[in-house]
Order: sequence, then C-alpha cells, then structure tokens
Amino acid sequence: MKRIGMLTSGGDCQALNAAMRGVVKSITNAEKDVEIYGFLEGYKGLIYGNFTMLTGKDFSGILTKGGTILGSSRTPFKLIREPDENGLDKVEAMKQNYYKLKLDCLVILGGNGTHKTANLLREEGLNVVTLPKTIDNDLWGTDMTFGFQTAVDIATEAIDRIHTTADSHGRVFIVEVMGHKVGWLTLNAGMASGADIILIPEIPYDIDKIIDKIHERTARGSKFTILAVAEGAISKKDAKLSKKEYKEKMKNYKYPSVSYEIADILREKAGVDVRVTVPGHTQRGGSPCPYDRVFASRLGSEAGKLILKGEYGFMVGIKNREIIKVPLEEVAGKLKSVSADATIVKEAKMLGISFGD
Amino acid sequence: MKRIGMLTSGGDCQALNAAMRGVVKSITNAEKDVEIYGFLEGYKGLIYGNFTMLTGKDFSGILTKGGTILGSSRTPFKLIREPDENGLDKVEAMKQNYYKLKLDCLVILGGNGTHKTANLLREEGLNVVTLPKTIDNDLWGTDMTFGFQTAVDIATEAIDRIHTTADSHGRVFIVEVMGHKVGWLTLNAGMASGADIILIPEIPYDIDKIIDKIHERTARGSKFTILAVAEGAISKKDAKLSKKEYKEKMKNYKYPSVSYEIADILREKAGVDVRVTVPGHTQRGGSPCPYDRVFASRLGSEAGKLILKGEYGFMVGIKNREIIKVPLEEVAGKLKSVSADATIVKEAKMLGISFGD
Amino acid sequence: MKRIGMLTSGGDCQALNAAMRGVVKSITNAEKDVEIYGFLEGYKGLIYGNFTMLTGKDFSGILTKGGTILGSSRTPFKLIREPDENGLDKVEAMKQNYYKLKLDCLVILGGNGTHKTANLLREEGLNVVTLPKTIDNDLWGTDMTFGFQTAVDIATEAIDRIHTTADSHGRVFIVEVMGHKVGWLTLNAGMASGADIILIPEIPYDIDKIIDKIHERTARGSKFTILAVAEGAISKKDAKLSKKEYKEKMKNYKYPSVSYEIADILREKAGVDVRVTVPGHTQRGGSPCPYDRVFASRLGSEAGKLILKGEYGFMVGIKNREIIKVPLEEVAGKLKSVSADATIVKEAKMLGISFGD
Amino acid sequence: MKRIGMLTSGGDCQALNAAMRGVVKSITNAEKDVEIYGFLEGYKGLIYGNFTMLTGKDFSGILTKGGTILGSSRTPFKLIREPDENGLDKVEAMKQNYYKLKLDCLVILGGNGTHKTANLLREEGLNVVTLPKTIDNDLWGTDMTFGFQTAVDIATEAIDRIHTTADSHGRVFIVEVMGHKVGWLTLNAGMASGADIILIPEIPYDIDKIIDKIHERTARGSKFTILAVAEGAISKKDAKLSKKEYKEKMKNYKYPSVSYEIADILREKAGVDVRVTVPGHTQRGGSPCPYDRVFASRLGSEAGKLILKGEYGFMVGIKNREIIKVPLEEVAGKLKSVSADATIVKEAKMLGISFGD
Repeated sequence: MKRIGMLTSGGDCQALNAAMRGVVKSITNAEKDVEIYGFLEGYKGLIYGNFTMLTGKDFSGILTKGGTILGSSRTPFKLIREPDENGLDKVEAMKQNYYKLKLDCLVILGGNGTHKTANLLREEGLNVVTLPKTIDNDLWGTDMTFGFQTAVDIATEAIDRIHTTADSHGRVFIVEVMGHKVGWLTLNAGMASGADIILIPEIPYDIDKIIDKIHERTARGSKFTILAVAEGAISKKDAKLSKKEYKEKMKNYKYPSVSYEIADILREKAGVDVRVTVPGHTQRGGSPCPYDRVFASRLGSEAGKLILKGEYGFMVGIKNREIIKVPLEEVAGKLKSVSADATIVKEAKMLGISFGD
Repeated sequence: MKRIGMLTSGGDCQALNAAMRGVVKSITNAEKDVEIYGFLEGYKGLIYGNFTMLTGKDFSGILTKGGTILGSSRTPFKLIREPDENGLDKVEAMKQNYYKLKLDCLVILGGNGTHKTANLLREEGLNVVTLPKTIDNDLWGTDMTFGFQTAVDIATEAIDRIHTTADSHGRVFIVEVMGHKVGWLTLNAGMASGADIILIPEIPYDIDKIIDKIHERTARGSKFTILAVAEGAISKKDAKLSKKEYKEKMKNYKYPSVSYEIADILREKAGVDVRVTVPGHTQRGGSPCPYDRVFASRLGSEAGKLILKGEYGFMVGIKNREIIKVPLEEVAGKLKSVSADATIVKEAKMLGISFGD
Repeated sequence: MKRIGMLTSGGDCQALNAAMRGVVKSITNAEKDVEIYGFLEGYKGLIYGNFTMLTGKDFSGILTKGGTILGSSRTPFKLIREPDENGLDKVEAMKQNYYKLKLDCLVILGGNGTHKTANLLREEGLNVVTLPKTIDNDLWGTDMTFGFQTAVDIATEAIDRIHTTADSHGRVFIVEVMGHKVGWLTLNAGMASGADIILIPEIPYDIDKIIDKIHERTARGSKFTILAVAEGAISKKDAKLSKKEYKEKMKNYKYPSVSYEIADILREKAGVDVRVTVPGHTQRGGSPCPYDRVFASRLGSEAGKLILKGEYGFMVGIKNREIIKVPLEEVAGKLKSVSADATIVKEAKMLGISFGD
Repeated sequence: MKRIGMLTSGGDCQALNAAMRGVVKSITNAEKDVEIYGFLEGYKGLIYGNFTMLTGKDFSGILTKGGTILGSSRTPFKLIREPDENGLDKVEAMKQNYYKLKLDCLVILGGNGTHKTANLLREEGLNVVTLPKTIDNDLWGTDMTFGFQTAVDIATEAIDRIHTTADSHGRVFIVEVMGHKVGWLTLNAGMASGADIILIPEIPYDIDKIIDKIHERTARGSKFTILAVAEGAISKKDAKLSKKEYKEKMKNYKYPSVSYEIADILREKAGVDVRVTVPGHTQRGGSPCPYDRVFASRLGSEAGKLILKGEYGFMVGIKNREIIKVPLEEVAGKLKSVSADATIVKEAKMLGISFGD
C-alpha cells in the first residue's frame, strides 16, 4: 500500500501531465493498492490541505495534454518560510498535512524555486522525489528538463515565420525568447531558425557589435537581420552595474522588456527599420513535442521505481542519455547556465552567428 | 507575345507566391512567348524602374513558400501622388516605366491601400489586374482574401497554447490579434480557439461588461478567462470621441497597444491576474495553409485567363465559392467590415461568447 | 424543459465534438432545463438503449478534441431495416427508446448513410436535426461538411513531405487520398500540394495520358512526378464495365487499392521507379483545423436554434457562407460530386495539372 | 585554398541540407578561397563526374528545407565494387574524378551503406569526412543521427491521429513505422504517442502475448489497442528460422509488409477489427524539426573545423551531448540496435507497454 502526494509548482510547462502519468502508471502497474493525493495549485494545495483523490484512470489520456491537471502557482522560496496573512506557518502546515494524510512520499514537479522548497521539506524529514520541469533548462544536475524542447519548437516556429516577413520587407526583426536568466532556449531556437544574432544573459552584448553585424550583412546584400534575444539578455554596460545601480536604472525603465530597448537603440544608431515580436506565454503552452513526451515518461517511470523501492530525497534527471537520480541537496539553489566558451557557442560562431560580444 | 509586369505591395502575407505562381503558370501554359517583369519592393520598383526578368522556372516550387519573391513595401496612397524627395512625380514615373517596357499589363497583389493606387493607375490608362492579398480580409468585393485563413490558423494556435497555461494558472489572458481596422481575424481565431470574450473594432466594448463576464465565469467555477482582442478594438467611450479628441488621447497613450490598456483596467477594476500575449508579425509569416494555397492558385489561374483574353481593370475575387472579376473602381477605397448584427456574431453569442457589448 | 438525444454515426472525423459542443452550448445558454442523452456508438446506442446522461460540462473543453466522445459505428442503411440476430426490429427499437425517454428530438451527426437512416426516422415520426459530418464533402445540400478541411490539411501535409523525398530521388510518387466515391478531398489536397496529376472518380483516367504527362515532365527536366490519387479513382476502361463485369474483375484483384495497380502499370509501361504512400486513417484523426472548428461551432449554434424553436426534420448546412437548413428528405440518398467541367477543374488544368483524361 | 567535394547518398532524410549548410558556412567563414563541387545523386555523381559548382550562396536559406539540394541515390555497397554495365570500375572512376578535380577532401552524408563505401574510399587513400544521416538512428559510434528526431515527430503525429479514430470506433490499429532493421524509431514514436504495444526487430514477438495484451485491455474497459510496429518486426518463430528457411517463407509471402500479416492473424485468432496504417515515405520528408536543425548544424560546424585542420578519415557524431569525431574504420559495417534489456525498454515496460515478448 502506497499513499502518494503529488503537486506541480511554478510556471506551468508542457509534459507535466506526461510526467505525472509516467509516475502513476509505473507505480500502479507494480502495486495494486495505491492512493494518490493530488494537491491543487502547487504548494498552496499542500499548505491548505486542498487536494483531490486520483486514480490511475485520471492519468489516462493525458500524455499529450498541455498544462497540468493539478493546476500550479508560483510561491517564491523566501515567502514559503514566512507566515501567511493569517499567521499560518506554511512549512509546518505542509508537514502537518503530510502526516495527517499518512503520505509515504511527495512527488514534486517544478523548476528552480520549486526545488529549493522541495529540499527544505526533505530537510524537515519528508520523503520527496522531484522531476525537473522547466522550459528554461536551467536546473543543475540534469542534462535536460522537460518542456524545454517543446519551447524550442515553438520559439523556432515563431522565428521561422518572422523570417519570411523580414525577407519580404527588408527589416531588422527581434524575437524575444523566454528562458529566465539563462540562454539555453534562445541559443537553441536561434540556431534552429537561422537567426543572425543571438543575445543571451551569459554573454553580455555590445550594441556596437550588433550594429557592425547588421551593416556587414547589408554590405553582403542581405536585406534583413534576425535577432533572437533572450528575455534576460543584458548589455556589457548594464552587466557592470552594481545591483543597486541596476535597480536604479530599472526603476525608470520605459520599455516592456530588453528587446524594445535594443530596438530603440538600433533605430537611432543604425537607422534601420526594427520590429519586435514577443511569443511570450505561448512558449509554455500546448501539447508536448514527442521528445518531451518520451523524456517525461522515462523520468516518471524511474521516479515510480524509486518510490516503489522507497528511495527518497532525489531528483530524477538525465545524464548521457540515461535516467539518473541526483540528491536533492546537490540540486537546490544551483543554476545551470550556458558557458560563454561552451563548444556549442563556438560552433554557432563558426556558422557566422554573432553573440554581440 | 505578352509582356507582363508584376508587383506585390503592402504588408506581406502568406500565399503571395502561390498566387503569382498561379498567374504565371496559367499564362505560360497557354502562350509560349511571355516576358515577366518582376518589380521589386512593391510600387517602389515600378517608380524607379527596379525590376528583374523572370521566367516560368522562377515560379516553380514556390507554392508553399511564405513571403514574396519580389519583396514588398508600404507606400501610403496619399504619398503616391506626392513627388519624392528629388521632385520626381511618382505616378508619371510609373507610367513611363510601364510604357518604356511596352507592358501589356500590370499584375498587382495587395490590400486596401494597394488597390487605391492600382485603381489610380487604371484611371491613368494602364492595364491592371489585381489579386486580393491581406490577412485582414477587409477587401470589398470578395468573400475572402488570401492570407486570411493562414493567419487565422496561426492566431488560433497561439490562443490554443495560451489556453493550457491559463487553465493551469487560473489567470485572465489577453491575446492580441491582427486585423487592422476590422475584426474578421479576431472573430474567427477567437471562435476557433474557444475564447470567452472577443473584442473587435466593429463592436465597441464596455469594460464593465467584460468584468461581468469574468465574474460570471469565476462564479460558475471557471478559473480562467481568455480574451481575443483585435488590435483595432475600441471602447464605447473612445468610439464616441471626435477624431480630434481621439488624437489627443493617443498623444499621451502610455500603452504599446489596446490590450495592455484593457489589462491594466482589468487588474485594477476586477482585481485579476492578467497577462497579455501579442503574436504580432508571426501572423503574416510562414507557409500558407492548404486552403490559401488552393484559393490563391485559383485566383491566379483566373487572373491569367483575364490577361490572356485582354480583359483589364479588374480584381479577381471569390463569391459563393466561384472565382469572379470585380471592376477596380468598385473595390478601391471601400472596406469590408464585420456587421455587429451579422449572423456569425449572433451564432458566437449563442455559444456564450461575449463581445463586451 | 428539453430532452435531447444525440448520436454520432459512421466513420469518425474531426470536429464532431466541436459540433456537439456548439449544439449543447447554444441550447443550455438559452434554457436551463435540458437533459442530454448521449447514445453510444451511433445508432447502435439508440437501438439497444445504450446511452449516458450528459451535462453542459461534458461538452466543455472538447472544441479542439478529435474523435467523438460518444463513439461511433457504421451500420449500413440496408441493414438498419433488417432485424438483428435476435430478431429485433431495429427501427422499432429506436422508436421505442425515443418514446420511452420522452425525447423532444434527436441530434444526429453523420454522413450519407447516416442521413438515410435519419430521414427514415423522420418519416417514422421522430423529431430529427442533423449535422453534416464527413471528410468526403459529398453530402448534398451543403457547400461544405465539417472534417473536410482538416482532412485536406492532413493529406496536403503528406504530399508536401513526399515532395521533398521525390525531388531528392527522382521518382514517381503516388499518394492515395481518401474521399470514398468523390474527388473533393483529392482535388483540394492535390492542388494545395502542387501535385502534377490528380485522379478522381468523377474523371476516369487513361493510363496513357498519365504516362504522357510523366514523359513530358521528364523532357522538361523535372526529375519527379507526384500523383494525388483518390481511393475511388477509376480508369476509363473500368468505368465502362457493367456492374457485373466490374465485380468479376475485383474478385481476383491482387492490389490493396487502385494506387498499387496504377503503380504496377507505370513501372511496366513507363519504366519508372514508383512508390505508393497511403496516409489512410490519419486523415480522419486529430484536432480539427480552425476552419472546421468555426464551421462546426456555427452549425451547432444554428442547430441549437432550430431545436429551441422546435423546428425539426432538417439538416443544417452552409450555402454562400451562411448557415442554412435543408429538409432531410432533400438530402437523403443524394451525392454531391465534382463535376468534370467544374470551374475549379478547369482552373487546375490551366495550372498544368493533368487529370489523366 | 580548399577544394571540397560533397555528396549525399542513400535514402534522403530531413536536415541533409542543414548539415551541408553547416559545413559550408563554417569553412567559408574561416577561409575565403573555397571551391565546392556538389556531386549529383550520391556516389553516382562521383563515379560519372556529374557535379555542379556551388558557392556559399547556394547554401543560404536551406536550413529548413527538406530533401537534399544535391539529390541522392542508393547504390548497395557490394555493387560499388563491381564494374557497371559498360565495364567501368566504379571505385577507380571515383578516385580518378577526385584526383582530376584536385579535391582536398570529400564530405559524404549518409547512413550505413554509405559509410561502408566512404571507408572504402578512405582505404583507397582519399580524404573523407562523413556525417551521420539516417532516420533509423542505427549508425554505430554516435548517440544520434540527424533525421531521426524529425521522423519520430512524424510517426508520432500519425499515431496521435490514429488514436482519436481508434478511440471513436473501438478498433485495433497497427501503425507501421520505418527504421530498417532497428527499432529506435518505433520505440520512440510508440512511447511518445502512448502506443499500447511496440514491436521492434530486436525483441521478436509472440503473437499470443499480443492477443493477451489486447484481451487484458478489453477486460479493463479499453475499447481500442494501438500497436506501433517496426517495418522490421519479426515473430519469435520467424526469428528462429535459418536464413534459407526465411527466404523460402518470404518467397510466397502474400503481405505487403509484416503489419498486414499481424493484422490477419489478430483478426482470425482474436476476432478483433484491425486496421493498418503505413505512413511510409512521409517519415523521410519535409522540414527538419528544430532539434535536427541544431544538431545537423553543429555536426556541420565541427566537420568544417576538421576540414580546416586537414583531419580526415572521420565521421562526426555526438556523444554525451558533445560533438565528437570517430575513425571511419570503427563505424563502417556496424549496426547500433536497441538492446532488449536497455533501460529505456524497461522503463517502457513499467509504463505498461507490451513488447510482445
């Protein structure tokens, strides 16, 4: 008999349902007597005891379904440790609900913030197994996170479409790609769509280098230039600011995001016609791509195996094409970024892609 | 022997290449001796004599290709009649190039502005055949314009993706859809994607009706609400402003577009978490959908027939599933909008969709 | 208070769920007190009283879902009037269930066979409203059936893919497209994908004309030829056979379908490398395209309106872009085929497409 | 100054153009003076001196284009060493053309057969660099081949579509997936689409186990069963046959492929309604998916680097997410198959997928 709590936390992404299906199928195929408590809207559901009882049937047919059947919410890590507006100690509340329901373990799907909280719960003595969910692919300890490849597909399709219109009109186009503070998504979508310039947080850009590249292309007869810009892209100048100075700058920031700032500067300094496109939340939505479905299913399957064996305190991840388990304390609080001298960056540069550095 | 000039003008869209391929195939299949002058970047190419000689081969394999192999540019109608910075009379320049090249006719693909200029050239005595290109579907005299259905597909896919993330997070999501001053694109994409609220220019909205609908949904247990908002959507209040008053308002307008204004008001007045997504230029790009490929090919085929018969001064369009010809003077300067009491609007309302009116 | 029976019959197709959602939403938005009896697996469910009670909620979120939540089955019309293996009179059984449940009407979604039975039930005194479902678009009385445009999209994508491989290898490729006894699907998918030869049942082909076209293409330097062949395509020779002679021929027919026969003859007579691809049932599956979603929703909405007004005995269809109602007795038993001298066929021929005639 | 010969051989697949673009971009960005000889239709072009001179421009804009701009052909390895119908020694002919054109090296893109010939040319003293192209992913020495992930996407979409129709009609559906003699493609597409049974060449099946699984599903209330069957799937019985016995069996084999045989047996032994769908060559065609575009670009970039450094005799591949070089003699003639006890197979089994073993 197993009593399993499950929750999805943080920004939603594709293949959350596929991963949960994997966990539940692998467990229910091995053991008849399983109770699944689905906590609603992330940690909130665990804090306030808001859950729904689920059976294997509820996880049937959701392999291809985007979103999460449990709902999700973002609760910043630092707020988790603070009492809520009614003075409730959230961590204690989660522990109490865990013990009250006599859970064997919690299955937690989420990204960086989620993993910090999951590790906290582990430290507090709860049995926890986690799965690496994020379109950003910035989780330490795993080569890949699910959601990422689907988001690459969506961002790539957007840039593909922009390509034909840029080509027809001879414009500079900026497509702003998600990815939080890391450049994986932008780097891959940019390479996949043949972007001419890729700007990522890990490689601060020099606006003059971007202008050089545009002029070089014009000189070579290319009528248009495509920039794939990470939402977290930063100029060399801004990268040198102290935290305080940066905050000061952002206080009066008049742009919706960095792409609009770059567009304005390019218009002024390079005299080009620039358009900005922001696919935004579409990058998190819809059916997961086949890669993510297989990957999330495999992760779910191995998470199920850990639970059946009673091995807790791990995130399941992938390393060299094999599913692995990584101790939660090694994962929590660390970020996996693109290295500025990573081989893939060098390969991209050999193809003629500029990083504005 | 036929000498045909061809140009694509205005914002690019899908199936421009498919339509040109149709024209050229139908003519070259019937007549051996054909010369095609492709003017580059819309009317600009005709004004400045910037063209490339094309053969049937150049139009092979472009049926599925987005954009336009001739390039495009926007030149507002009123500017067409004004001399350029060097004092050149643009209309005269176009006529001179037409006669110098001894063209039999011009094939012009474009939307509303393009048709005004095409009609002007007709009035000036040039032989003109036009094809109705625009994702807005706002051209008078034809049931449909090519590019429209593909744009519906793209906007629908965006809202589909937003649906899963809205569902997971329980938010209000606004997706801003193109369409210039008419609501066809938003209406169709909104109905296709199951949007809860559709705002179009032809039906000015009352923000309180929108809030009512959101609250009604919350009361019924729906955690999220999706708004498909046309880029030209307008509030009842703004719709009542005089042109001068509206201009005054827009002078200090702090929002990138109307969706952001609506979002702000909803946040404040309804206290909901609102996100805005703007698919933007992706709606004009990429490969045309099968519907548009067939439609543009048929239009091209019939345009070719007109040219072979020497019948000029027409736009080819579609009426009741048959390709027709419409005198250019009837088309130019008119707009085809959604009627507020159109049957399709009533049908949408019966499905529970609110138009905020 | 309304008591509505609903069933989907015949081969499944896309947008069945979208259409049912439309009916239910439009009725439940207008009237509180509605009971919906969903009969399972088509007429079978009505015959054997196999149904499930449904509410508005069951139809929420199914707009984009392929298949049918009610299941379907094919029961040939002539068998409907014969007793089943236990001697049950099926028509009487349907009537009894209808009266036993005190239904106000039946909503029936289906194609040609389905409409014959629906009309029979109408003649027997039952209140019936039908919706035109079929990827074949062969229903008389409506310009369009839902499912059709999605099937065009899928078949087109298949031919698009084949195009690149045909081009790389210099082969003749046959793609067999569904469509039962009419050529709408093949004609549209063929035109949309730039097929060189289109064979449809309505225009019997002469194999020598096909060979001529292939040779003509080779002579012009085209390495490959693509044939879009309807599953019901027929040679001029076979078209002249009497029913008996044709039956005799098919008795010893060694090919899985006509495409394989054509391939064999081309290999032998034209000495070319031929490959056959049959997308098959994929053409009926998956999410409906935006066009079909809007169309099916509109049909559903108007069907709901008829029911609310108590107007029965009609199929809802579309004519000149407006949703109409057509008396069932006019629809049943008639086929809408492509006319050999339809304008669209002539347009296709002008583009250089051969119909092998 | 570099003189580079390039050819694509074997069945075409997605991302061939992307890979060639990568090679050419990385070389031309580093070195001005480059001559590229594109041999047409694989080794044939090299044998008969059939080539076209290409520049960087020819490789611009082909990143997303399916097929191969050089054309391809299959020439079985054993035939390469035999003289052609005119007595021409093909290997000598290739060498002579190589030396006559004073090539620095050959860039060869292909699969298993292609690599055997490439290694032969290396043994004969030619400078060769190869890239691993095949939708089968069966090349030894690399974790992945390009084309594979796109083929997974296409096969998965086909099974997804079949899912909705199977669900509606309560049938057993077999989808036959490509993959030659290995099961990678079927395994991944099957897992991605939630197939219930996956049959691959590496795990011979027992038809009774398949029937058990179908019955087990029926007993649990599932109306349908989906089988993803590799084109090379084999029964335990057939797997035990000697080569001679197997040949004898196949001589009178009445089925187009193994799926039809399985379908027939299931119909007879299990009394179920079975349909077969064969997506066939669509699996090789169309635009490469973003994963393949990035991967092929990276391979091309690193192949370019090898050429610039004059390092020959290698295939570029990927290992643990880094691009590597593998000596050609280690690659040629070896097959990378799925191991019957691979972790991914165990994971699939935990999810409830039957392999019929």
